[in-house]
Amino acid sequence: MDLSEISVFCPATIANISCGFDVLGVALDTIGDKMVVRKTKGQGIRITKLEGQDLPMETQLNVAGVAGLALLAKSSYTGGFEIEMFKKIKAGSGIGSSAASSAGAVWAMNELLGRPFTKLQLVTFAMEGERLASGVAHADNVAPALYGGFTLVRSYEPLDIVEVHCPPELYATVIHPQIEVKTSDSRKILKTNITLKDGIKQWGNVGGLIAGLFLEDYPLIGRCLEDHIVEPIRSMLIPGFDRVKSEALKAGALGCGISGSGPSIFAFSKGGVAAGKVALAMKEVYGNIGIDYDVHISKVNVDGVRPLSE
Amino acid sequence: MDLSEISVFCPATIANISCGFDVLGVALDTIGDKMVVRKTKGQGIRITKLEGQDLPMETQLNVAGVAGLALLAKSSYTGGFEIEMFKKIKAGSGIGSSAASSAGAVWAMNELLGRPFTKLQLVTFAMEGERLASGVAHADNVAPALYGGFTLVRSYEPLDIVEVHCPPELYATVIHPQIEVKTSDSRKILKTNITLKDGIKQWGNVGGLIAGLFLEDYPLIGRCLEDHIVEPIRSMLIPGFDRVKSEALKAGALGCGISGSGPSIFAFSKGGVAAGKVALAMKEVYGNIGIDYDVHISKVNVDGVRPLSE
Repeated sequence: MDLSEISVFCPATIANISCGFDVLGVALDTIGDKMVVRKTKGQGIRITKLEGQDLPMETQLNVAGVAGLALLAKSSYTGGFEIEMFKKIKAGSGIGSSAASSAGAVWAMNELLGRPFTKLQLVTFAMEGERLASGVAHADNVAPALYGGFTLVRSYEPLDIVEVHCPPELYATVIHPQIEVKTSDSRKILKTNITLKDGIKQWGNVGGLIAGLFLEDYPLIGRCLEDHIVEPIRSMLIPGFDRVKSEALKAGALGCGISGSGPSIFAFSKGGVAAGKVALAMKEVYGNIGIDYDVHISKVNVDGVRPLSE
Repeated sequence: MDLSEISVFCPATIANISCGFDVLGVALDTIGDKMVVRKTKGQGIRITKLEGQDLPMETQLNVAGVAGLALLAKSSYTGGFEIEMFKKIKAGSGIGSSAASSAGAVWAMNELLGRPFTKLQLVTFAMEGERLASGVAHADNVAPALYGGFTLVRSYEPLDIVEVHCPPELYATVIHPQIEVKTSDSRKILKTNITLKDGIKQWGNVGGLIAGLFLEDYPLIGRCLEDHIVEPIRSMLIPGFDRVKSEALKAGALGCGISGSGPSIFAFSKGGVAAGKVALAMKEVYGNIGIDYDVHISKVNVDGVRPLSE
């Protein structure tokens, strides 16, 4: 079948999973955008529709456009693409809004072209969208968005992405308090040096977390969701963070931390019911403080970007 | 069967496996000590024989004695033990000589008493032997010696040891150049601070290494056997290290690093033949420099301390 058009689901993602700062991310299953990508005879890429968020439609200023251009530059395809974007993930929420668009666009284009590119190549194209969005061509969100499940970005030179087994009953709860935290600010407050002692704790936890995921050992996963380095600093930019975390843990969450560079806060739980209880506990904190919020519950998405049946 | 005597194999171990500084160790299969432990009516512990190394036989000054006393203190057993030690692992070689004795003693005693203690408890007893040997009650070597395979010491408070899957074809080559490096010296030269950037590389590699072990992905294991933090400093105390490492990699090793705090150097390979080629390449370096050495080739030991059939 020679496809000329495809609709795709572009998942939200959690990056910087506690101890896994800058390396570990995961894709979500019920939070994400919709995107329609269509082949055109004319060359280049046009964003023909953009609903849900106030974002630029000029190809060069749109992350999906830029990621798509990176793909086209490496392709022998002589035509172009039209993109319709239906954004559900709020920009600046910390759950990979730009990554969903970049990853969705290049995944869809690759399908329409008969899959000439590997997932790893798609990541490099989508990273150009991230460069536009944040100034840094990072893979923290686009890797899980494209691979699905948990991904570890082990190195950038060369780019080395490791797929990590995902336990079947792992659910995420994400709460997005409606406050603005600029990624650039949350980068600036990080220290450039850490103690060797904290480093050892961190890589012990990363090792344990990866083992816990492969072993499907939920309590071990919970014990490893610690971050002695970044969370103590960045959480200061998120009002109510400590309270949300302690209430989430009291409600039965395995662990809780900052999603991406915030302000969203994620928790992992074993099973959907537990994740729902955690959602209620988190909501109550922001209800009491009087900060508006969105809250999401989702199984981990093991496929990444996927086609939507019409 | 009510055992009154047992002979055990006490494996050598590699701690501080590259990126896994202070957390990741592995047990070896063909390098280790023999120990005989015997119940006595009299209380306390006596070392009645000690062959192979020049080490103290006074219970309080011998790591097996001290580890055994820690076990006795938690036991309802009213008798005592005699220990005969046949040391093959040289003290100060960096492959867990003291840990083999501590772990072997408490494992054997636990067998003779009908296994009243868990492996985790045995680790805490054996750690008292390590405290005597090095001043620090660390678990880097006693954990893999008791659990077998790869172990991750995720945390000390509380003690949390994670067993990591071991790929069946993983072999270690270990070369011990006959030079003295004091653990205290090799501790002293470590920096107390590291850059966040190096930390991120390190925990990316630890995460990838643990994933590689579970996935039995030998090339991934190799790519992750990097250490940007400790090896560049400690290797300065080991003459010929860089040359040994580069020759081992050229000969086909997956990776190569410092065993424990040195001076032994380990390499991992896929298969015994490959490990043998690596041994030849390593030997040649020290042969040329004119430093005496021992070289060992071993499959990974997935059992830890084990009974020896008479």
